Amino acid sequence: MSRSRLTREQRRAQLIDLGMQMVEASSFDAVSVDDVAARAGISRSLLFHYFPTKRDFQLALAEQAAHDLLERIAPDPDLDPVARLRTGAGSYIDYVTDRREAYLSLVRGAAGGDDAMRVVFDGTRAQIAGWLLMGLGHEPEDAPQDLWLAARGWVALLEEMCVVWLQTDVLDRDEFVDLMERATTALFAGLGIDRSLLET
Amino acid sequence: MSRSRLTREQRRAQLIDLGMQMVEASSFDAVSVDDVAARAGISRSLLFHYFPTKRDFQLALAEQAAHDLLERIAPDPDLDPVARLRTGAGSYIDYVTDRREAYLSLVRGAAGGDDAMRVVFDGTRAQIAGWLLMGLGHEPEDAPQDLWLAARGWVALLEEMCVVWLQTDVLDRDEFVDLMERATTALFAGLGIDRSLLET
Repeated sequence: MSRSRLTREQRRAQLIDLGMQMVEASSFDAVSVDDVAARAGISRSLLFHYFPTKRDFQLALAEQAAHDLLERIAPDPDLDPVARLRTGAGSYIDYVTDRREAYLSLVRGAAGGDDAMRVVFDGTRAQIAGWLLMGLGHEPEDAPQDLWLAARGWVALLEEMCVVWLQTDVLDRDEFVDLMERATTALFAGLGIDRSLLET
Repeated sequence: MSRSRLTREQRRAQLIDLGMQMVEASSFDAVSVDDVAARAGISRSLLFHYFPTKRDFQLALAEQAAHDLLERIAPDPDLDPVARLRTGAGSYIDYVTDRREAYLSLVRGAAGGDDAMRVVFDGTRAQIAGWLLMGLGHEPEDAPQDLWLAARGWVALLEEMCVVWLQTDVLDRDEFVDLMERATTALFAGLGIDRSLLET
């Protein structure tokens, strides 16, 4: 594609796509905007026309990673809650496995000091917690407070289990999907959720 | 105290103590080493003699926060597992409430990009997970893999619930202690832990 053919949005999308490929090959912080510009066949200064700072570019990568994750695990409304949970846990783990570096970057970078990054991250967590609550029969904003807090904590539980799982050699994929499912069912059944929503 | 009376370790302890007070008054990243030096009655360059960079000083504050938290919640071996869990959850929440900024800094700063900080943070999480596993009758290194992973995730669940709880207006202290206890019991009972360890 010649440079003049790309709209602003197409160019941004191309640069983000190249950046995401490079995240997987190295790590989030190590992505070089010079390399991204070179691969796109544009100058460094033109890249900074689309993303004024390296931080802006990294933020765009984080937003893309969050978008990809949410798209991958978005619940299928045709499934019953149990199947939705099982499918969601499997999709989450497959995303985490396929996009290991993007995932670790999202989880870690976002919990750091950068406010804009934290907004992306908190929004992602809140969305996942909201899907869970809806699966349990509650609108997120009307859920009982203890359940709402537990759903927020549960997202962190999944994340931390994934981060540790990626870095160690415990459990294979199916065992891990099973653990995520059992942990979720156990937690919410114990907090008084109707088990019929949780067990077939 | 005059400057000449302090040993190296005493001076470091004094500076960390002043720094921790200032973390509570503002935030972790906002702690000014100039202000700390001024309050200690020493020059900025002398402070840098004890802590070569601002990052070193912040790391020392993170280590102090981790130490304070662990000391506060260390399990009492004279208590049975249920009482230990209840007491531990209460102490954790009281620490989080008393040292809100230090806690948020530890949890957030540590999850960011800084490797040294992450070591402090991971060590703290692993210690807490280990205490839980011991309360459940397992040596951490010999615990079943699913239980060990779940214990790591459970620490993150507690943290996230605390972070969200501190920032919102849901549940009072006792309700929150109760939720932490119920969530813990539910999770581990559901994962096959003998309920007699979890319930009186």
